Amino acid sequence: MAMKKKPVTGMKDILPREMEIRDYAIGLIKETYKTFGFTSVETPAVEHIENLSSNQGGENEKLIFKVMKRGDKLTAAASKLVEAGADRDAIGGLSDSGLRYDLTLPLSRYYSNNANDLPSPFKALQMGNVWRADKPQRGRFRQFMQCDIDILGEQSIIAEIELILATTTLLGKLDFKNFTIRINDRRILKAMAAYSGFAEEDYDTVFIILDKMDKIGLDGVKEELLKEGYAADKVEKYLGLYEKLVGGDAEGASVVAASEKANVSIENIKLVKDTLGDFLDDEVSENLSTIISSVEGAKAADFGISFDPTLVRGMSYYTGPIFEISMDEYGGSVGGGGRYDEMIGKFTGQPTPAVGFSIGFERIVMLLLESNFQVPGTGERKAYLIEKNMPADKMQKIMALAKEERDKGVIVNVSIMKKNKKFQKEKMQEEGYTEFVEFFADRDF
Amino acid sequence: MAMKKKPVTGMKDILPREMEIRDYAIGLIKETYKTFGFTSVETPAVEHIENLSSNQGGENEKLIFKVMKRGDKLTAAASKLVEAGADRDAIGGLSDSGLRYDLTLPLSRYYSNNANDLPSPFKALQMGNVWRADKPQRGRFRQFMQCDIDILGEQSIIAEIELILATTTLLGKLDFKNFTIRINDRRILKAMAAYSGFAEEDYDTVFIILDKMDKIGLDGVKEELLKEGYAADKVEKYLGLYEKLVGGDAEGASVVAASEKANVSIENIKLVKDTLGDFLDDEVSENLSTIISSVEGAKAADFGISFDPTLVRGMSYYTGPIFEISMDEYGGSVGGGGRYDEMIGKFTGQPTPAVGFSIGFERIVMLLLESNFQVPGTGERKAYLIEKNMPADKMQKIMALAKEERDKGVIVNVSIMKKNKKFQKEKMQEEGYTEFVEFFADRDF
Repeated sequence: MAMKKKPVTGMKDILPREMEIRDYAIGLIKETYKTFGFTSVETPAVEHIENLSSNQGGENEKLIFKVMKRGDKLTAAASKLVEAGADRDAIGGLSDSGLRYDLTLPLSRYYSNNANDLPSPFKALQMGNVWRADKPQRGRFRQFMQCDIDILGEQSIIAEIELILATTTLLGKLDFKNFTIRINDRRILKAMAAYSGFAEEDYDTVFIILDKMDKIGLDGVKEELLKEGYAADKVEKYLGLYEKLVGGDAEGASVVAASEKANVSIENIKLVKDTLGDFLDDEVSENLSTIISSVEGAKAADFGISFDPTLVRGMSYYTGPIFEISMDEYGGSVGGGGRYDEMIGKFTGQPTPAVGFSIGFERIVMLLLESNFQVPGTGERKAYLIEKNMPADKMQKIMALAKEERDKGVIVNVSIMKKNKKFQKEKMQEEGYTEFVEFFADRDF
Repeated sequence: MAMKKKPVTGMKDILPREMEIRDYAIGLIKETYKTFGFTSVETPAVEHIENLSSNQGGENEKLIFKVMKRGDKLTAAASKLVEAGADRDAIGGLSDSGLRYDLTLPLSRYYSNNANDLPSPFKALQMGNVWRADKPQRGRFRQFMQCDIDILGEQSIIAEIELILATTTLLGKLDFKNFTIRINDRRILKAMAAYSGFAEEDYDTVFIILDKMDKIGLDGVKEELLKEGYAADKVEKYLGLYEKLVGGDAEGASVVAASEKANVSIENIKLVKDTLGDFLDDEVSENLSTIISSVEGAKAADFGISFDPTLVRGMSYYTGPIFEISMDEYGGSVGGGGRYDEMIGKFTGQPTPAVGFSIGFERIVMLLLESNFQVPGTGERKAYLIEKNMPADKMQKIMALAKEERDKGVIVNVSIMKKNKKFQKEKMQEEGYTEFVEFFADRDF
């Protein structure tokens, strides 16, 4: 029988050392988010193919692991394929569902299905695997855990503040320091583009280019916008705004000391509002300032929060504030989110305000693994080594002894004494067993 | 846009109340099993279709959710299907993988892939979802959580004893009482059939009929065996054995008081051995007695362990002791397992002893839900109700107050005060919030 030993392409077996960190992180996440009033929810890994392909998922919709129909429906779809030839639609007809590629779409479906049984506002915590048939590459897997918190049904910025505080409190408990929450608002992005004279249908293209600011700088963005064919005066005006705010430094406010970031940011937001005038609602800039000052005043970890007018966030479903966690140690984002007030309405027909924050669980676990993170409080570990062929009465006594210690929380590993006892002990020491108790059949204990 | 609100057929959205119990059970399982030296492992949800279809999965192989190939491979498979017509092989060719239907097969693959990085013996804890395209029915879902502990590389009955003690300790912590661990050995099953004159190729059929003992009784089993065409003298001899052991009572030793079960069982095992003589190795009966007395002597919960010669366990991969948890409250099995020394050899080419015990996680959660189980120690729950349009400086103060309490482990839910405050509070009381603190924009706090 030819059995395959390796996992399927792009997915991985998780070894005990990593699992220890994952279990610890999962426990801490649940514990921390619960103090903020979040409750766990779960949706199936398999979703309707119609929902997965509804244009809410952006690029991810190209990466779906599709699940085949079964039984008569599969036979019918296959016959249809034979008749029609192997065209796209006929191939698509073979599948009725797929593995979820994120937790946001399933949550929207969940909420619209269960809203009557849920509190309002509803604070949801979701931890679960998602699947994307991405090109396999180092450190990136086709099955990975996502960890999302969402507040549904809350129109006010309480939602944004709570999400950012919950997430940063968690990161602090995981010993992360010196990170930055970058924050912006889709409406500021749009107002800045409108003020500069760009037409609404150009926004998406402009934002995709703007998003490269941290890589290619102001000059690079300018060059690409011009290359795209936008009028020089619009481009000049647009970049002038950014120059004023980030001072020609692509990193923007992040060069300022963490404690100063909030103040600088609030000044910058005022500057934006003063410049944009009627292009931007007062409420948008005021809310953003309040989010920043509230987070700054109640933060439970060593981090900065700063307004970053270059922050775009890919997904087009965002409607208000957007945010991202930048971590120098990782050299990139380890999480992000924002307000998406229109997605749930797609299911229910009536708009429901919603804000979400997702942490990059896999990246965080990787950083902890690489920094040789020690899970705290794993307790005492004892190994009982027992001689082979121990008589029943003595075996009973050994198991009773083990029970007593286990009841106290001691980890007791009972195993048969090997011929090479020295080697056996060395191996167990590597696993963290510090104490060894030996039992022999012909001795009393 | 036509979005579907319900989950896919046979799968379910899990509501907060159930999730609270699930999270609690998951935490307790990890904590308890860890004191026995088990370490968590995880395998991908998606497995090679070749492995899933390798005849290790019995009936489950008919219930696989198959995942379609992607890109060029899918196009090629579809073209082939068009050429060949919609026959079984061509349809099969569309898929390269599937969702795992249990955790045992993936664990065998995992062990053969990673044995060099794992301790020996290896004590694995797996909690994860599995998928089976079963006919949807009440209380039975197409995605469900399994929770398995396995000891790989341990030849001695230490493995069986540890697994049974770990599982029963867990059930005790979950407040289950009065359950019974039924235990048997595949080699006793076989020896009893051999002694009665059945040929080896008939064992599987005979055991399938024997397995119905608790439903149809001794007479029913006799009738079905005769109907199957087995010689009357064999059937008489076979049922005579069972009559001697279970005294014509299909429930067998389980009518005895829990504390007496172990002693009665050890007597019964002696009786079996004396009757079967050379048909049964001394070691088999001695080991079974030692397992029973060791578990009885170190048990951490209120349960009985009893030898049940009618216990069969479906899967043909079992090679030694087999066991099952019977729970009166549920009227059926809530878990089981056994020794399967030959499965891992299918991957590696060299046999590796293995024993596993799986608890019926979903059934246990259902029983806890139905008994209105209260998760202990969920802590104090406070609701902060804040007036709309709170100024930034006051908002900052509120969030800082919440932080102080959350740091102490208090659950603080901050939300906007609604117009119908009375109703809002009533709803929150239903969620367990006992204390309400109100904040107004024009008052000091």
